[in-house]
Amino acid sequence: MAFAQRLGSTATIVEERLKALLTECGSKADERFAAAMRHAVLVGGKRFRPFLVIESAALFGLEARNVIDAASAVECIHCYSLVHDDLPCMDDDDLRRGHPTLHKAYDEWTAILAGDALLTLAFEILSRPTTHEDAAVRSELTQAVAAAAGAGGMVLGQILDLEAEKHPKAGSPAIEDIQRIQALKTGSLIACACEVGAILGRASPEDRAALSLYGQHLGLAFQIADDLLDAEGDAETLGKETGKDAALGKATIVSALGIARARHALHEAERKATEELRAFGTRAKVLVEAAQFAARRAH
Amino acid sequence: MAFAQRLGSTATIVEERLKALLTECGSKADERFAAAMRHAVLVGGKRFRPFLVIESAALFGLEARNVIDAASAVECIHCYSLVHDDLPCMDDDDLRRGHPTLHKAYDEWTAILAGDALLTLAFEILSRPTTHEDAAVRSELTQAVAAAAGAGGMVLGQILDLEAEKHPKAGSPAIEDIQRIQALKTGSLIACACEVGAILGRASPEDRAALSLYGQHLGLAFQIADDLLDAEGDAETLGKETGKDAALGKATIVSALGIARARHALHEAERKATEELRAFGTRAKVLVEAAQFAARRAH
Repeated sequence: MAFAQRLGSTATIVEERLKALLTECGSKADERFAAAMRHAVLVGGKRFRPFLVIESAALFGLEARNVIDAASAVECIHCYSLVHDDLPCMDDDDLRRGHPTLHKAYDEWTAILAGDALLTLAFEILSRPTTHEDAAVRSELTQAVAAAAGAGGMVLGQILDLEAEKHPKAGSPAIEDIQRIQALKTGSLIACACEVGAILGRASPEDRAALSLYGQHLGLAFQIADDLLDAEGDAETLGKETGKDAALGKATIVSALGIARARHALHEAERKATEELRAFGTRAKVLVEAAQFAARRAH
Repeated sequence: MAFAQRLGSTATIVEERLKALLTECGSKADERFAAAMRHAVLVGGKRFRPFLVIESAALFGLEARNVIDAASAVECIHCYSLVHDDLPCMDDDDLRRGHPTLHKAYDEWTAILAGDALLTLAFEILSRPTTHEDAAVRSELTQAVAAAAGAGGMVLGQILDLEAEKHPKAGSPAIEDIQRIQALKTGSLIACACEVGAILGRASPEDRAALSLYGQHLGLAFQIADDLLDAEGDAETLGKETGKDAALGKATIVSALGIARARHALHEAERKATEELRAFGTRAKVLVEAAQFAARRAH
C-alpha cells in the first residue's frame, strides 16, 4: 500500500476510535461541552502521532486494533495542546485545519476546559485495562506520556516559545535556542508516540531508545517542513493562516537559517531519523517512509 | 493531638514534599515558569485533600510517608483547577489565599500553561514506582483521579457552573441543579482523595464505596460552608474576596435556600458523612473530625 493511503486508512480507524471514546466520555458531560470536545479532536488532522504509535508497535508484531487506545490517547494530548496554543493569550489563531479554532467556534472558557478535559481523558485512557492488560505497561505509558507532555517537555517548549516572542532578548535568537524550543514543543510528543509503540511492544531498551531518537529527528523534520510551508505555502492548501510566523516576528529555523539552509537541515533530520531505524531492517519500511513524508510535504 | 494541629502538621509535611516534587520538575523547566508553578502550589492552602488521602489510607494501617506522593498528586490537581478557574474568562479572581492569583502575578498564558503542567505532573507522579510499588495500584489511582478530575467530574462541574452564569435560563436555577454542580466541582475531587486513600490501602469494595460517599457528603458540607463564608465572612480573614457570588448573581446553595436552610443542609451533609464512617469504628475518629471541621468553619 502506498504511504499516503496507509496514513489515510489509519487516520480513519483512529478517528472511529476517537469518536467512540469521546461519545463515551461525552455521555457523562453536557451536550454543548461534549460537542466542543468533539470539535477539538474530530475536525481534520492527519493523525500522524497515532500513526507513529501504531507503526512503531507493528515493529514488534502488534496489530493496530490492540494499540489503538494508546494511540488515541496520544492524539488527545496533541489536540489539547493545539486548543490551548491557539488561545488569544498565546498564538491567537482563528483558523485550524481549515475550521474555526475552538475558542472562536465556542468561547475561551470552553476552549480552556475542553483542553483540560482532553488532557485528563488521555491519562484515563492510558490507565484502563482495555488499553493494555499489563498494569506495568499501562503505568509506563502514563509516565512516558506525562514526561513528554509536561513542564520538561511540550509545555516547556510552548513556554520558551512564548517567552522568546513576548519578552524578546536583544539580538536575534541563537539557532540552538530555536532548535531546543522546537524539539520540546513538537519533538517531545512525536518522539513519545514512537516510544509508546515501543513500550506496548515490550521493546528492548536499545530499540526503545532508537525509536525515541528516530522520533526526535522526525519531529525536527516535521517542524522545519511546517515552518517552510508557513513561509512559502498558501492558506488555502494548508487550511490555516500562512506568513504568520514572519508577521509575528517569530523566530523559526527558517527565519534563523534562511530557506536554503533550512532545507539542508530538513534533509539532515530526515537522514538521521532514517539512520536510527537501521537495526530494524526492512520491517521499518513504513517508518522510513514516514520520515520522507514529514520532510517532503514541504517540497 | 487536636484536629487543627494535626491538619496543620500534615500540611507542613505535604508542603515539604510538594516543594521537593516541584523542584525536581522545575529543574527541567525554565526558572520563571518553575517559579510560577511554585506560586500556584505553595502559596497558602489548607492541604485538606492530601490530608484526606493520608487519613483515609491510615484507616488501613498505612503511614503518611508511604502515601504522600499520591496525596501530593491530588493537591496538584486541586491547584491546577484553582489557577484555571481564577482566569479572567472564568471566575476572574484577583486574589486567592490572600495573594495575587497566578495570572495577576504573571500573565494569562503562564497561568494556563502552569495549570496544564500541574495537571500533567499529577499523573506523572501517580505513575511512578516510588508512589506505589504495585503497578496495578498505580494504574487504579490514575484511573480514579482522571475520572474525578475530567469531563465527567470536576471539569464538568466548572462547565455547568459557568454555563449557568453566562447563559442563564429563565427563572432561578433549581436547588438540584446547584447541588449537582457543587457535587461535581468540589465534591468529585474530595471524594476522590478519600478513594485514593482506599486504593492505596487496598480497601474492600465496600470500604472504598463508603469512603467515596463520605467524601461526597464532606464535599457538599465544605461547599456550603464556603458559600456561607462568602455570604457572611470578611475578606481579611478569608484571604479572598467575599460577597462575590452575590455580586456575580451566582447561584449557590445559600442563594437558593437562604442562610437558615443552607445551615440545615450543612448539618445534614456533616451527619451523612459521619454515618458513612460507622463501619470503621473509632479508627475513623480523625475523619469524623474532618467532617466537623469542614462544616463548622462557617460558624
